Amino acid sequence: MAHRVAVLGASGYVGAELVRLVATHPSIEIAALSADRKAGLAMGAVFPHLRHLDLPGLVAISEIDFGTVDLVFCALPHGTTQPVIKGLPRDIKVVDLSADFRLRDPEAYRKWYGKPHEAPDLQREAVYGLTEFYRDAIRSARLVACTGCNAATGQFALRPLIEAGLIDLDDIVIDLKAGVSGAGRALRENLLHAELSEGTHAYGVGGTHRHLGEFDQEFSALAGRPVEVVFTPHLTPANRGILATVYVKGEPEAIHAALSAAYADEPFVVVLPFGEHPSTRHVRGSNLVHLGVVGDRRPGRAMVIAALDNLTKGSSGQAIQNANLMLGEDETAGLMLAPVFP
Amino acid sequence: MAHRVAVLGASGYVGAELVRLVATHPSIEIAALSADRKAGLAMGAVFPHLRHLDLPGLVAISEIDFGTVDLVFCALPHGTTQPVIKGLPRDIKVVDLSADFRLRDPEAYRKWYGKPHEAPDLQREAVYGLTEFYRDAIRSARLVACTGCNAATGQFALRPLIEAGLIDLDDIVIDLKAGVSGAGRALRENLLHAELSEGTHAYGVGGTHRHLGEFDQEFSALAGRPVEVVFTPHLTPANRGILATVYVKGEPEAIHAALSAAYADEPFVVVLPFGEHPSTRHVRGSNLVHLGVVGDRRPGRAMVIAALDNLTKGSSGQAIQNANLMLGEDETAGLMLAPVFP
Amino acid sequence: MAHRVAVLGASGYVGAELVRLVATHPSIEIAALSADRKAGLAMGAVFPHLRHLDLPGLVAISEIDFGTVDLVFCALPHGTTQPVIKGLPRDIKVVDLSADFRLRDPEAYRKWYGKPHEAPDLQREAVYGLTEFYRDAIRSARLVACTGCNAATGQFALRPLIEAGLIDLDDIVIDLKAGVSGAGRALRENLLHAELSEGTHAYGVGGTHRHLGEFDQEFSALAGRPVEVVFTPHLTPANRGILATVYVKGEPEAIHAALSAAYADEPFVVVLPFGEHPSTRHVRGSNLVHLGVVGDRRPGRAMVIAALDNLTKGSSGQAIQNANLMLGEDETAGLMLAPVFP
Amino acid sequence: MAHRVAVLGASGYVGAELVRLVATHPSIEIAALSADRKAGLAMGAVFPHLRHLDLPGLVAISEIDFGTVDLVFCALPHGTTQPVIKGLPRDIKVVDLSADFRLRDPEAYRKWYGKPHEAPDLQREAVYGLTEFYRDAIRSARLVACTGCNAATGQFALRPLIEAGLIDLDDIVIDLKAGVSGAGRALRENLLHAELSEGTHAYGVGGTHRHLGEFDQEFSALAGRPVEVVFTPHLTPANRGILATVYVKGEPEAIHAALSAAYADEPFVVVLPFGEHPSTRHVRGSNLVHLGVVGDRRPGRAMVIAALDNLTKGSSGQAIQNANLMLGEDETAGLMLAPVFP
Repeated sequence: MAHRVAVLGASGYVGAELVRLVATHPSIEIAALSADRKAGLAMGAVFPHLRHLDLPGLVAISEIDFGTVDLVFCALPHGTTQPVIKGLPRDIKVVDLSADFRLRDPEAYRKWYGKPHEAPDLQREAVYGLTEFYRDAIRSARLVACTGCNAATGQFALRPLIEAGLIDLDDIVIDLKAGVSGAGRALRENLLHAELSEGTHAYGVGGTHRHLGEFDQEFSALAGRPVEVVFTPHLTPANRGILATVYVKGEPEAIHAALSAAYADEPFVVVLPFGEHPSTRHVRGSNLVHLGVVGDRRPGRAMVIAALDNLTKGSSGQAIQNANLMLGEDETAGLMLAPVFP
Repeated sequence: MAHRVAVLGASGYVGAELVRLVATHPSIEIAALSADRKAGLAMGAVFPHLRHLDLPGLVAISEIDFGTVDLVFCALPHGTTQPVIKGLPRDIKVVDLSADFRLRDPEAYRKWYGKPHEAPDLQREAVYGLTEFYRDAIRSARLVACTGCNAATGQFALRPLIEAGLIDLDDIVIDLKAGVSGAGRALRENLLHAELSEGTHAYGVGGTHRHLGEFDQEFSALAGRPVEVVFTPHLTPANRGILATVYVKGEPEAIHAALSAAYADEPFVVVLPFGEHPSTRHVRGSNLVHLGVVGDRRPGRAMVIAALDNLTKGSSGQAIQNANLMLGEDETAGLMLAPVFP
Repeated sequence: MAHRVAVLGASGYVGAELVRLVATHPSIEIAALSADRKAGLAMGAVFPHLRHLDLPGLVAISEIDFGTVDLVFCALPHGTTQPVIKGLPRDIKVVDLSADFRLRDPEAYRKWYGKPHEAPDLQREAVYGLTEFYRDAIRSARLVACTGCNAATGQFALRPLIEAGLIDLDDIVIDLKAGVSGAGRALRENLLHAELSEGTHAYGVGGTHRHLGEFDQEFSALAGRPVEVVFTPHLTPANRGILATVYVKGEPEAIHAALSAAYADEPFVVVLPFGEHPSTRHVRGSNLVHLGVVGDRRPGRAMVIAALDNLTKGSSGQAIQNANLMLGEDETAGLMLAPVFP
Repeated sequence: MAHRVAVLGASGYVGAELVRLVATHPSIEIAALSADRKAGLAMGAVFPHLRHLDLPGLVAISEIDFGTVDLVFCALPHGTTQPVIKGLPRDIKVVDLSADFRLRDPEAYRKWYGKPHEAPDLQREAVYGLTEFYRDAIRSARLVACTGCNAATGQFALRPLIEAGLIDLDDIVIDLKAGVSGAGRALRENLLHAELSEGTHAYGVGGTHRHLGEFDQEFSALAGRPVEVVFTPHLTPANRGILATVYVKGEPEAIHAALSAAYADEPFVVVLPFGEHPSTRHVRGSNLVHLGVVGDRRPGRAMVIAALDNLTKGSSGQAIQNANLMLGEDETAGLMLAPVFP
C-alpha cells in the first residue's frame, strides 16, 4: 500500500519537483498539497506541466487532515518552517527542505540566519539529510533536514578527503556555478530573463553565503578542528544544475582513489576516471552526482569538480531518497530516472 | 521477461532519448546499440548523461546478433534506412524513426526526398506511426514508420477538425516554432550556440519542408480530396519543444469541442479549457501533447495551438508507445514520466 | 552645440537604451533623467552597464528644470504619460515612447486601453512616429508618438503592400515572435528566467493584443476601408528581437518588388533578395529592419518576414530617429551602430 | 583622411567584430577582407548582420593589393599566422589577434603550442598588445600581438597587485567563466546549442590551457621570479563575456586601492567601489573592463573579479585600441560604444 505524503509549500520549484518525482514513484502518493497564497487553486493552474496528474488542490496548511498522512515534505521558505513543524502531530515523519533545521548549533543558526531558533528542542532530534553520510540515522529519524543544494555539491567533493586527512584544511577554495532555479520562484529583478540570460556574475561573495554554515559545521566535525573554506557562488544562465570547482592541496591520485573508494557502492554517485570532469548538462533532472578529479600542473594541487541538479539531488530528489529510508522502502525507489539531455 | 531491443543509430539525440526512456521502462531492455562512426566507443563516452547505466557498447550494425533481438528501433539518418531494414531478419519487429517509410506513395517519397525509394515492397507493409490514429494497425504491424516531429504536432491540432469537416480546407496556416534538437547532432554552422541563441529565424519557408509530404498525405486522405496547408517552421533558441500555432477558419467552440471529444480517452493528449493555450515548457521531457483553442476577434476564425517535446512524443516516446503496442504491453508502459520544469 | 534632452522614465529598458544610444550621439546630450521610484539613485546603480558615463542622477520629474531642456523623451508606462506631457512647457518638443498618443481616435484608445483619454487636445497634434512613413509631419511636430515595437514590425512588412493594393485585405495573418525585453523590467512571474527560458508560448491570442489598435488604425487608413488582421504574438527565450512572419495572398514577386521600391532609399530598411529571409540575430542592437519575401508553393500566396530589435528600431532608436528630424539633425545621426553578433 | 586597413581572416567572429567596430570608427576604413575558404563570397553572405555596409568582397590573401593598405589586422587561426605576416611588405603595420607572437620566448611557444616558431626574427620585434601596460611600445611598434581574451581578463585583475608586491605569488587561483564565442565559429560538437546551452563545464583543467603561457610570461616578468597561477576556465551558456574570479592572499583594501590607483586614468577600465563586483552582462559589446574587489571572511584573503567582452576588449576592441595608437589617432577613437544591455 502506498505511503501517503503531504507537500507543504507546493507552489515553489522544490514543491513542483517533489510532485514530478512522486508521479512515477511506485509506493508514494500525494495526500495533500499546501500553498498559502495560492490556496484554492489547482496545482495544474500553478504548474501547468503537472496538469495531467490527478492531484489534490492547493489548500492552506490548516486545512490538511494530517490523520491520513504518513510523511510530510516541508518545502516552505527559510525561517518560516520551525513553527509549522512544531505544530505537526508527533507521529508524522518530516522531511524538511528548508534551512531551518540544518545547523545543529542554535548559535550558528542565529549567526547565519540572523534570528534566534524557534524550535531548539526539535533541532536536537533533527538529522542532517545528506543521505550518503547520514544513512543510518536517517533511517530511524523522525525529522530530517535536507542539505542545501550548494552545500551538498561541495560536500560530495570534499567529505571523504577531509575525513582521510588528504588535503590542506586551510586552503580550500570552492568556486561554484549555479543555475537560477535554486533561487526559487521569487519576483526579484535579478532573476528576470532579461537580467540573467547571456551572462554570469558572483553573489554572496566574501564568505557571506548561508550555506557556509553547513560547510563549517560538517567539515569541522569531520576534521575535529575548525575548517573554514573560501566559497564563491556564481549565477549562470541555466535553470538547473550546480558545478563546484574545488581547489585543494593534496595528491591528485590519492584524492581520486579516496573518492572512488568512498562512493564505490553508492547508487547515485559516479566518480569519473582520473583526469575527466563532469558537466551539469549530464545530470539534469536526475538524482545523480558526477565527480571528477584533475591534477594541476603544480605538484600537490588538484581540482575536484562536482555536478548535480540542484532541484533533484540538491533538494527534492535528496528528500525522496531520505523519505524512502524513513518509510522502509528501497533507497532508490522512484529515483532512477535518467538525466534529460539535451 | 523483458523484451530485447536493438537501437540502430544510437549516437544521435533520438537514440539517446530512446535509451533514456528504456532506462526506466519496466519490460524492455537494451540488447544492442549501433553507431557506425562511433562503433567501439562506450555509450557513456558519447553521451555522458547515460554513463551510470549498464549498456552494451556501440558496435557496427553488422556486428549485432539479431537472433536475440525482439524489436529494432531504427534511428538512422533519412535516406539510409531502407537498405538496412530490408536486410533485417523477417521475424524482427521494426520501429523506424527516420522518414524513409512515412510516405505511402513512392512518388511522393521521390518528390520530397529527391531520390527513388529503395524498398517499395517494405513500404507497402509499413504502418504510419502516429499512435493515436493508427493504433489498431500498429498493434499488428511488423514495420512502423514514426511520424516526423513537426508533422505530429500539426496533425494533433488538425486531424479531428479535418475529419469532422469543421474548417476551411483551403486556408490552413501552420506557423511552427521548434527547438534545435530536432535538427540532430550534426555539425552545421547554424546549429552552433553562438549562431542560434538569442534569436529566431524561419527555415524551409515557402512550402519546401519535407514534413509537408506527411501533411499532404494524411490530411488529403482524411478529407478525401487534396489538402495543401501553408507551413512555416522557425528555429528558436531552446533545445526541446515544438509549438504549432495553427490558423483555421471555423467556429472556435465547435473546434474545441471536436478536439476535446477526439482526445477524451487519450492518456497522452491534454486539451486545455477553451481559451487557454499551451507552452513547450510544460511538456519538456514527457510524452504529452498539450492542445489549446482560442477564438479570434474575427468571427469564424480560430487559433489551435499544440505543444509537444520533439524528442519524446515527437520521436522516441512515440516510438516506444508504438513498440509497447507491437509487443503486447500496456501502451503507456515506461512513458508516464512527468515533464521537467523548470 | 548639443541639444539637451531629458529622459523621463529612465529606469526601464527603453530608458536605458535611449541613454546607450545618446552616449555616442554627436549632437545630443543628457540634461536630466527621471525615475520616480528610483529617484535619488545614480543611473549606474540602476544600470551598471552605463556606469562609465557621466550622467545626471535620477530625480523625480518635478525636480527637473525644463528651462534648459530642448526635447523630452518620455518612456513612462502606458496610461501614465498623458498628464505628464500635458504638464510640460509648450516650447519643449516631446518624443513619447508609450502608447498614450498613438491612436488618433479617443474611442479607439478607450477600447484598447480600457479608459478614457486624458489629453484629447494633445492627441490631436500628435504625429504617429513611424519615421519612414510620417517623416515630413515628424519634422515639424511638437509631439511624436512612437510606434509600438510589434506594430512597427508588422507595418514595415505590410504598409507598401496595402497601399499598392497588392494583397487580399481580408486574409492577413501576422505571427510574431518576440524577445522578452519588450515586456519591460516588470516583476512578473512569467518573465523570470526559470519560467521563460527553454521554451515558447503565445500571448495576447485571439485579437486582444493592444498593438492591434495601431494595425487597425494604420492599415484601414491606408486601404480606405476597415482592415482587421489576425495577429498572434509569441514570447521566445531571447532578450531582444522581433520576427514577424506575415502570411498574405498576393503575387510574391510583385510583393517583393513593391517592398524593394518602397525602401530603396531608406537608410535603415534592408530588403533581402527575393527568396531570402531575415533573422533577429542580425539586427540586434541596431536601428535596422531586415525584410524578406518568399513565395509559397501555392500560387498567389507569400510570406513576408520582418526582423528588428524591439529596443532599438522598435522604440529607442526610432525615438532618436524622430528626435533627429525634430531637431534639424541628420536623420541617421548616432544611429548607424552595426548590429552586435554573435 | 582615413587609414586603410585589411582584415585577414574576416570570416570568423573576431573578424566580424573588427568590421562592426570599424563601421563607426571615424578614421579607419576597410580596404580588403580575406577568408580563404570563403573567398569569393560577400561579407554580408557570411555575416548577414553586416549586409547594410558597403564592404569589399572576401578574397584570398594573395589577391590583396597591399600597396594601398596602411595596417593589417590579422585574425587568422593560431599557428597559421607566422608565415603570413612574414610575407607582408615591411612598411605595413600589423595588429595580430592570434597567439602566434604573444610569447617572447620561442621555447615557451614550442611548449604551449606544440611546434617550433616559424618566425623568431619577427617575434623579437613584436610588442605584447595589452594596451594599458604596453602603451608606449605599442605606439612605435610595427607588429603588435594582442593578448588572449582569458589572459587579458586575468592580467587586468592581477598585474598591479603583483607589481606592488601585495599578494602571495604562490597561491593565486584564477577561476574563469567564458561565453562560447571565444571558441570561434568552428564546427565542433561541444559548441552546438543543444550541447552547450543550459549547463556549465570546465575545460583545459589542470594547467593545460595555452593562455597560461601568457600568464607565466607576464607575471614572472613583473615579479622578477617565476610565478605559476592555478587557472581553470569554464564554458557557460552565453555568447560573449568573460568573468574571472581571482582568489588571492593579501589585504583586500590595499588590493582595492592599488587597482583604483593603477586604473585611475584609464578610459576603458572601471574599478567598482570596494565590496562591489561586476557582471559580464554590463560590458557586453563594449571595450570596457569592470573590476571589483571583495574581502573574504578570512582575514588576508580577497577575491578580485574582472569582467570583459572577449570579442571586444578581449580581442577586436583591444586590436583597434592598439591600431589607434600605432596610427597616431586618439586611443579611444571608435571604441566608446556603450555596452548593450539587456
